[in-house]
Amino acid sequence: MKMNYFEESLKLHEKNVGKIEIKSKVEITTREDLSLAYTPGVAEPCRKIHENQENVYKYTSKGNIVAVVTDGTAVLGLGDIGPKAGLPVMEGKAILFKEFADVDAFPICLDTKNVDEIVKTVKLIAPGFGGINLEDIGAPRCFEVEERLKKELDIPVFHDDQHGTAIVVLAGVINALKVVNKKIEDIKVVVNGAGAAGTAIAKLLLSSGVKNLIACDKVGILYRGIENVDDAKKALAEETNPDNLKGTLADALVGADVFIGVSAPGIVSQDMVRSMNKDSILFAMANPTPEIMPDEAKIAGAKVIGTGRSDFPNQVNNVLAFPGIFRGALDVRAKEINEEMKIAAAYAIANYVKKEELNENNVLPSALDKNVAKEVAHAIAKAAIKSGAARI
Amino acid sequence: MKMNYFEESLKLHEKNVGKIEIKSKVEITTREDLSLAYTPGVAEPCRKIHENQENVYKYTSKGNIVAVVTDGTAVLGLGDIGPKAGLPVMEGKAILFKEFADVDAFPICLDTKNVDEIVKTVKLIAPGFGGINLEDIGAPRCFEVEERLKKELDIPVFHDDQHGTAIVVLAGVINALKVVNKKIEDIKVVVNGAGAAGTAIAKLLLSSGVKNLIACDKVGILYRGIENVDDAKKALAEETNPDNLKGTLADALVGADVFIGVSAPGIVSQDMVRSMNKDSILFAMANPTPEIMPDEAKIAGAKVIGTGRSDFPNQVNNVLAFPGIFRGALDVRAKEINEEMKIAAAYAIANYVKKEELNENNVLPSALDKNVAKEVAHAIAKAAIKSGAARI
Repeated sequence: MKMNYFEESLKLHEKNVGKIEIKSKVEITTREDLSLAYTPGVAEPCRKIHENQENVYKYTSKGNIVAVVTDGTAVLGLGDIGPKAGLPVMEGKAILFKEFADVDAFPICLDTKNVDEIVKTVKLIAPGFGGINLEDIGAPRCFEVEERLKKELDIPVFHDDQHGTAIVVLAGVINALKVVNKKIEDIKVVVNGAGAAGTAIAKLLLSSGVKNLIACDKVGILYRGIENVDDAKKALAEETNPDNLKGTLADALVGADVFIGVSAPGIVSQDMVRSMNKDSILFAMANPTPEIMPDEAKIAGAKVIGTGRSDFPNQVNNVLAFPGIFRGALDVRAKEINEEMKIAAAYAIANYVKKEELNENNVLPSALDKNVAKEVAHAIAKAAIKSGAARI
Repeated sequence: MKMNYFEESLKLHEKNVGKIEIKSKVEITTREDLSLAYTPGVAEPCRKIHENQENVYKYTSKGNIVAVVTDGTAVLGLGDIGPKAGLPVMEGKAILFKEFADVDAFPICLDTKNVDEIVKTVKLIAPGFGGINLEDIGAPRCFEVEERLKKELDIPVFHDDQHGTAIVVLAGVINALKVVNKKIEDIKVVVNGAGAAGTAIAKLLLSSGVKNLIACDKVGILYRGIENVDDAKKALAEETNPDNLKGTLADALVGADVFIGVSAPGIVSQDMVRSMNKDSILFAMANPTPEIMPDEAKIAGAKVIGTGRSDFPNQVNNVLAFPGIFRGALDVRAKEINEEMKIAAAYAIANYVKKEELNENNVLPSALDKNVAKEVAHAIAKAAIKSGAARI
């Protein structure tokens, strides 16, 4: 990563004074324009919505507007920098929604870290939104926030750091397995880093057919009976690690087919890669420095290596997922984004890479390809209808 | 008012599926665009804001974004129709902000009528906003909501139904007094309807030099010692009605120079107008049917008559005020919109009508004249600096 990205980014943000603006979809020039878009005419759509609340989707922008909600506690790799300092990321997310999938997204930066207050606030502002994208909320609070909002709201709630990442990783794993000719049921997977993303990746891989998955964290392998970790990690240990192994990340990796890192720079050694099965697959997504550099992993025998970076092959970038996911969910007015929909999105991303273009250096589409979102939206809408989540 | 406005408005809202969208101010086409607007570059503005919270105005859109907040309890003349049904009005307001003053405004429709919850929610979402425009929140709750938010937030909080209306009425009164050649200190004013707008009008007129003002409500004249009205009305009685008169609206109007109605259709008779002083001024703003029709008031001797309607002369339309008010407040990062700023805005609107064009049928600028907002913004900024409310 070139350091001048930082200077250039500052200039870009300062020049434009932020990245989003609100635009009118109608023109206001004549007295008649004013009378239709505002008083007295506007009273009629108000009345129609009052008669039937569902009309809010017909006469307002609600159905296309997503709140990008953060408490600023886990912003990028910067940590708990607060809601104001998180705003540039939320604005960035908002413009990606618009540019990639014509979803109108608006940042809501909350001045609280309290789970009850976050849940309450999002519920109270929900009438104007068609969906809620949770962003950069630290684990384990993010799990409870999402779970409660999913239960209490009738619009889709999606924590992108968890599920967006998980969906793109699953897509990468699906295609990488094609390259090495292994089946998802047969592989052993190690996920290192049991925060928001790692937990969601583990769960989505299990939903997708992985049988043998070990989750590790700073303390090593998560196993049933482990102490000194939070409840979310204990719960994850219940669902993973079928042989209830104990030990270090190095112990976990022996005989593994897939390593997925959402952890820390350089913590995977070449020896660890050598201890993995033949044709191993690594998604080393620590940012900006991966768990192991791709060239080192290759030398140690890895076949497919992905990272979070755009300057290496196989970039895991959430922008492949979230714009199309909300596009599809909003299009069919889905009440939620369920497991079937997430898996369908992952397959749509994986299948976007044409068979003849698929190889160890090309298991994921380019993050800049705006057509991916269309395929994802289509798959999400279809899965929403099939799973009963769609409302139109 | 032509009734087909309603049908046409429905069509307009349905065709566009609402009236607002979120736009990107920067282009996302290349990998570099993505790296500057989003990761990794975006980390740098985040860090700069984390170092100094004031940088949020430099690197994000906060400084130009206003939340249009409602609980849907007093929407137009429709009453308590709820937050979803209020959304078309809030979107309308948002686009007027943008079209008239390039202020980015976003609707926040709250699913609660509880004062504590409204205050708490607005405080918690405030980090992303440069100002708060309260809208269509019923009296007397609106007074407490505004008062508490003004105290607890460091960005301008402005209840437009109160102060926007009051500012435009004051502008109209200032010019009408020029037409009839009376001084503001000498006149007797009767304000009928002591809700949000009426109360704010009364207070702003008092701040502007009116000495003799009587406020009336459904129960008649508000006087010190009155029972059966809420505390806000009792407080208003403390500040008005210097002779502590009791009686009906008709009693109040005897010898009055100015009538201001924010009340109910047709409740002012020609006889009441005849009982007023010579060259009386009436702003009869009940919607859609005024307290007295302009032609009837003229026959009874009134000199200047304004209404809320665009099909009669002297339309009192808040769009003359709120866009420029927030434009000016945001431009100097005002911490509040104080009394001096409101009075300055009213004079700016009044003075916008050129001396040679001022007459009884033209005491207010056209609601469609987008240059009014510029004058108002300039006046607001100047008054903010003078009164110490400006922060840059």
